[in-house]
Amino acid sequence: MPEQFRHTIRVRYSECDPQGHVFNANYLAYFDLAMTELWRELGGYAAMIAEGVDMVVAEARVRYLASLGFDDVAELVVRSISLGNTSMTTELAIERAGDAVAEGELRHVFVDTNGGGTAPIPQPVRTGLARYSTGQ
Amino acid sequence: MPEQFRHTIRVRYSECDPQGHVFNANYLAYFDLAMTELWRELGGYAAMIAEGVDMVVAEARVRYLASLGFDDVAELVVRSISLGNTSMTTELAIERAGDAVAEGELRHVFVDTNGGGTAPIPQPVRTGLARYSTGQ
Amino acid sequence: MPEQFRHTIRVRYSECDPQGHVFNANYLAYFDLAMTELWRELGGYAAMIAEGVDMVVAEARVRYLASLGFDDVAELVVRSISLGNTSMTTELAIERAGDAVAEGELRHVFVDTNGGGTAPIPQPVRTGLARYSTGQ
Amino acid sequence: MPEQFRHTIRVRYSECDPQGHVFNANYLAYFDLAMTELWRELGGYAAMIAEGVDMVVAEARVRYLASLGFDDVAELVVRSISLGNTSMTTELAIERAGDAVAEGELRHVFVDTNGGGTAPIPQPVRTGLARYSTGQ
Repeated sequence: MPEQFRHTIRVRYSECDPQGHVFNANYLAYFDLAMTELWRELGGYAAMIAEGVDMVVAEARVRYLASLGFDDVAELVVRSISLGNTSMTTELAIERAGDAVAEGELRHVFVDTNGGGTAPIPQPVRTGLARYSTGQ
Repeated sequence: MPEQFRHTIRVRYSECDPQGHVFNANYLAYFDLAMTELWRELGGYAAMIAEGVDMVVAEARVRYLASLGFDDVAELVVRSISLGNTSMTTELAIERAGDAVAEGELRHVFVDTNGGGTAPIPQPVRTGLARYSTGQ
Repeated sequence: MPEQFRHTIRVRYSECDPQGHVFNANYLAYFDLAMTELWRELGGYAAMIAEGVDMVVAEARVRYLASLGFDDVAELVVRSISLGNTSMTTELAIERAGDAVAEGELRHVFVDTNGGGTAPIPQPVRTGLARYSTGQ
Repeated sequence: MPEQFRHTIRVRYSECDPQGHVFNANYLAYFDLAMTELWRELGGYAAMIAEGVDMVVAEARVRYLASLGFDDVAELVVRSISLGNTSMTTELAIERAGDAVAEGELRHVFVDTNGGGTAPIPQPVRTGLARYSTGQ
């Protein structure tokens, strides 16, 4: 079983729309924030960049299960990561009081910052992500 | 062949991130804008609300094919709509100079604004959407 | 000397622009967040609304002193509040490592949620704000 | 009398808050957009950058006069510009159907992109801005 990574936020007024709920696009901003905080936990992002490898988002998906309102406390959850050779797929969820209000995936591709083509996932990154990984 | 709906925008500085590209979550805001403009073309949204039916986003998906930068002119394209009984799936793209920089889907569910349960797509809406529809 | 209210945030990637700094408009979103957190500390916002009084922003001002970058830890500071009869002016700052990167003011007007006209600051609110107040 | 520059927008759903109005910080994003479009009209921004001079926002101010709602058509107005030696102050307004819903100012400082210090306003820029200028 992979370990889950969790980061708690509180919904800001500026993130909500006239229906009083978090605007649908902002769930992807939350997913992005979850990845930032995951990398803070892991470390090694700056080292990866220094070696000429970066990640870009290739695909994003969100399933909206319930609405999230102003001032709600929500947990951004990285449920698991599936590692390929040059890409990874991250399963995420947003939970409120233990219930998922959204679920989704982000697929990132690793790229060579000089040439721009895809790059193999660097070994230190692969090692760091192992505890969240479902295998591969 | 369904008709395509197109709406042209220009990328704003505030929509771009430190890599100089439109931040990934903002593609969903663009999809949302495409739907707003589609409904302006169709008419009938206010009438639908007045009859007690609204739409909520149930699922969103984006595939990022190329980056979109500050001041780029982009076309938001509704490629086709697939109508179910109580939901619809819209195929969208974002194009620059004729090339897709992103593609994706939005699935909307029609809901009863009083009870909150799902509602059948109102007939006038179904009729209005027919020219964009792939069938069903 | 009025007491200062402080709330710590970390700059999100989505808040930064192509220059790599927090986009200028987002400083006002930070000020708004500071006010939300101040009211959480004070309590009484819901009670004020229940009594038919709300606040609207009438004026905002920001002086940008230094740039704030992705992942920077920043403190949102309410330096002092000046209470009028139907309005209040809040002096705010954003600090990083003890230095102000921005300063500004928000002027809020209290309004009658039924009639829409201005309303006197309710006494419990006035009492709650006293410790941050410069006088009046 | 200086000439006024005008750019028309339509308020997006994603720009509105739970009160159904444009979120207060977004007025500054609108001001920023007005400046982008003003520079498009003027030309010469790229040339200025190429010569090693850029502009940064030093101060922003907004007075909120009326609310602006989803789908409202609004005009972003540059009312006048006051040119100093190394800075300029722009008077802006946001109008709906001829009435100002907000007014404000932006103060920009011209900076040397190499050294970072202030820089005199380049002569071609000064000449280009003359028709919007109130004089000094």
